[in-house]
Amino acid sequence: MSEPAAAPESEAASEPAAASEPAAVRGDDAALTARAADLDARDPLAKVRERFTLDEVTYLDGNSLGALPSGVGPRLLDVIEREWGSLRIRSWDESGWWDAPERIGDRVGALIGAASGQVVVGDSTSVNVFKAVVAAARLAGPERDEILVDEATFPTDGYIATAAARLTGHTVRPVPASAVADAVGPRTAVALVNHVDYRTGRLHDLPGTTAAAHAAGAVVVWDLCHSAGALPVGLDAHGVDLAVGCTYKFLNGGPGAPAYLYVRRDLQPRFDSPLPGWTSHADPFGMAAGYTPADGATRGRVGTPDILSMMALDAALDVWDGVAVEEVRAKSLALTDFFLDCVAALVPAGQVESVTPAAHAERGSQISLRHRDAGAVMAELIRRGVVGDHRRPDILRFGFTPLYTRYADALRAARVLGEVVR
Amino acid sequence: MSEPAAAPESEAASEPAAASEPAAVRGDDAALTARAADLDARDPLAKVRERFTLDEVTYLDGNSLGALPSGVGPRLLDVIEREWGSLRIRSWDESGWWDAPERIGDRVGALIGAASGQVVVGDSTSVNVFKAVVAAARLAGPERDEILVDEATFPTDGYIATAAARLTGHTVRPVPASAVADAVGPRTAVALVNHVDYRTGRLHDLPGTTAAAHAAGAVVVWDLCHSAGALPVGLDAHGVDLAVGCTYKFLNGGPGAPAYLYVRRDLQPRFDSPLPGWTSHADPFGMAAGYTPADGATRGRVGTPDILSMMALDAALDVWDGVAVEEVRAKSLALTDFFLDCVAALVPAGQVESVTPAAHAERGSQISLRHRDAGAVMAELIRRGVVGDHRRPDILRFGFTPLYTRYADALRAARVLGEVVR
Repeated sequence: MSEPAAAPESEAASEPAAASEPAAVRGDDAALTARAADLDARDPLAKVRERFTLDEVTYLDGNSLGALPSGVGPRLLDVIEREWGSLRIRSWDESGWWDAPERIGDRVGALIGAASGQVVVGDSTSVNVFKAVVAAARLAGPERDEILVDEATFPTDGYIATAAARLTGHTVRPVPASAVADAVGPRTAVALVNHVDYRTGRLHDLPGTTAAAHAAGAVVVWDLCHSAGALPVGLDAHGVDLAVGCTYKFLNGGPGAPAYLYVRRDLQPRFDSPLPGWTSHADPFGMAAGYTPADGATRGRVGTPDILSMMALDAALDVWDGVAVEEVRAKSLALTDFFLDCVAALVPAGQVESVTPAAHAERGSQISLRHRDAGAVMAELIRRGVVGDHRRPDILRFGFTPLYTRYADALRAARVLGEVVR
Repeated sequence: MSEPAAAPESEAASEPAAASEPAAVRGDDAALTARAADLDARDPLAKVRERFTLDEVTYLDGNSLGALPSGVGPRLLDVIEREWGSLRIRSWDESGWWDAPERIGDRVGALIGAASGQVVVGDSTSVNVFKAVVAAARLAGPERDEILVDEATFPTDGYIATAAARLTGHTVRPVPASAVADAVGPRTAVALVNHVDYRTGRLHDLPGTTAAAHAAGAVVVWDLCHSAGALPVGLDAHGVDLAVGCTYKFLNGGPGAPAYLYVRRDLQPRFDSPLPGWTSHADPFGMAAGYTPADGATRGRVGTPDILSMMALDAALDVWDGVAVEEVRAKSLALTDFFLDCVAALVPAGQVESVTPAAHAERGSQISLRHRDAGAVMAELIRRGVVGDHRRPDILRFGFTPLYTRYADALRAARVLGEVVR
């Protein structure tokens, strides 16, 4: 159990001196090294990396599990030892446990363009997809019988939408996310779309798709798992109806950290949850036999909040102090541009192909490269201390978290990838 | 409950207790003090208290939030700093994160009479009630249209059952838990019953009700929130179909710790979840568009498990090492008997009335006392360091956790209650 973190090759092994490398590659590497050093030196977010616990591993999997913000451990120990151990039930009031879903929801909301009072944290993304899809179908009214689902969606969204449709009597129709705007019609109750495709890293058109759905009278649910914390989402600005997302990727909330649900303020009085648990009641401690929903975002709550995971998320969000999502987006694009340049220069031609759009307007905060032997290549990358992940059958996925990823990390990943595939 | 000798009420309610106590009470207190000391000295579980972080407070609210097992803090810090901070995504395999819901589920199962492979931990109790009620309705078949719900249930069960019935087309009929066995009939699909009533502490007849439900062809779902960890449940022995429960009461898992779902082994192949999230898929990392359920208890999972809360629960369960639920039950009954004796001796006659059954076969691990001014009385008890809770309108609730509650605690609570109401 006390195995050390992925043992990277010695620095020497990843230096561009290998005899097998062509001279042109060595020259490119030197130029890219200088460019990385310059970019890192001028990076306005460079100091934010110090708020995380990191080591010599080149960690490019923050789009799966964000790195540890250093404040989480001390905060959780205090939550456990003092708030739980000493104050015990008093902490529901005195330590802000009861209101944590709304309070932390507001902090997440600030990062996705939602004014306060519209986001609650809790449950998993899957459970929130269920709440959102059923509630959206109810908002759309009984005369609409179709739920459109982004066909390349992270599978749980499709599974849950199908399960919801079975219960509500709707039909699920998968369409490409980019075609949702054209596919919505008078039968469409709900469109469930991923903002960024988990596999390809493609960023979909949230404003345009939302507007098209509204023009057709449909309700749109956005899954923000791969965009929240990586780029501006603008939920309020674009009039999004409902949204869900996880907090363990670019929000660094920890493994399986609670997800969240956004319900636009004017829809809240009509938000009719399929999971009306006691903490969403207008008077939860009245413990009445009949259900009366609370006002506001609280209506999206279900059961007793999982305080330890939630307070870890709360502490993790402190890394955002003084950071604007806009500058995160600027660095994300610069990082992924630079990584693509490094790959072009250092990986032998024909070995990998990017499936992530080159256009900034269509790119999230990851680069996905296709390689015929992606599983073995990623295993070897990880063995050499470059951690991305593999998505079957042939995708190498590299996530870029601007809060802690350096240009030097992007360079090193491309360099080691070149060594591995050469 | 035997009444103490009649004593004149003192008007000097704010004077030191000793001065206002009748001589008979002082004599009773001395005898009870000796009896508590003897009982504590002979308690085979006395040493288990050392596994918890406790202080001078008389904590009788473990049926709301269990006290802190001392091993949780160090374990969570290791999960955060090493497993998340250093191993990061490798911990899904190397630190046992991925299988935690089943592995910890088996540990919970051992405490509720479930052989391994039938319990998964995750989500809130409310979400698990939803899974269980919808799946039970599907198991019962389309010709049965009624869901019976224990009318005095903790409200979330009723809210969620009603929400589930709305989606599945069933009708909810509330009946007293003790009448469920007589109420089940050919229309009954599901009976959702609390093993112990949260308000009165009444223990319901799980074997008899289950047998009656089965004789009528219905599927029974038990809510074990107030029995798991306090008394033997015997899920397998009594042929229970489905069960749910929380882990933050007598299982001491921490605030909002993950709940669990039991699905009897032979029902698992037909368990048809309304929340088929990706982690319940037969091949979750295949990320196929179509859903194929996993075998076994895994089918009850939904989204990514909340690892921090889950690992806290895992550490908390270590306090059960070498402890049998049967000896916990024996001490629970002895503690609550003793508390009732102390109340009878030390609380002026007519002030409080127990609403918890005197018969052992009908008593959970709490004593609920009715008092016309329960809210103010409990506030004053808490101010004096005796922590129970108040359930509206007129119930003083005292929970007894045999792993850490001493007979001296029961005596002190009754003594201070006598002082407060005198």
